[in-house]
Amino acid sequence: MSTQPTELFPGFEVQAEGCESRDILDHITGRWGTLVLLALHDGPKRFSEIRRAVQGINEKALAQSLKHFERDGIVDRLAPEEGYPSRVEYRLTEVGAGLEQRLRELVMHLYEEMPKVLDSHAEYDSRRAS
Amino acid sequence: MSTQPTELFPGFEVQAEGCESRDILDHITGRWGTLVLLALHDGPKRFSEIRRAVQGINEKALAQSLKHFERDGIVDRLAPEEGYPSRVEYRLTEVGAGLEQRLRELVMHLYEEMPKVLDSHAEYDSRRAS
Repeated sequence: MSTQPTELFPGFEVQAEGCESRDILDHITGRWGTLVLLALHDGPKRFSEIRRAVQGINEKALAQSLKHFERDGIVDRLAPEEGYPSRVEYRLTEVGAGLEQRLRELVMHLYEEMPKVLDSHAEYDSRRAS
Repeated sequence: MSTQPTELFPGFEVQAEGCESRDILDHITGRWGTLVLLALHDGPKRFSEIRRAVQGINEKALAQSLKHFERDGIVDRLAPEEGYPSRVEYRLTEVGAGLEQRLRELVMHLYEEMPKVLDSHAEYDSRRAS
């Protein structure tokens, strides 16, 4: 039995150019997307709070990520009171929380494997040096 | 009890600039990295086979991805016979297979959620049009 995603979900294929699922994968795994989603794990955050959580992200990249996520239905934009733009908060939707959970599992697994990755770097670099 | 990765794995934090785990996360979730790893799910593949599997990837991006993965110990480069460079194959290591599994779970979950994502696009776009 094949586990090719194409066969289970005939409508989508991330390996195919032009498939919308590839765009969404780009949003959630792009340079900053993953880190923004992980930063929302604990609950809603303001723009400035996300910026502080994700070290090194600039305003433009964060605004872009949030705009994509809002359109994708991955993040909700909560404006509690009119006239207080700085109080706008961003929260994972149910869809967003499910995707963030998988990303978090990936990152937790990566942390577990990091000692092996660092060993591999040392070995690779010493092989090339000799 | 907190589930902050920093507390479980004190040595690594993807949100921190300069943490090596952030670089590896970039490799496995970058523009092409995820698609290259998924393409190796079924077993070793030659360079040209990976290129065909990952639609739209160019030679330079694939070579770069494979080089990172080799140094990270995520992909093995197998050269079965000397003098046959075109027979070189690339295979997930044990570390690579574990990471690919998590990426695949993410993508499978994304496929399940795609109908909701597309509904959200339609709703978002019609709200902005009106």
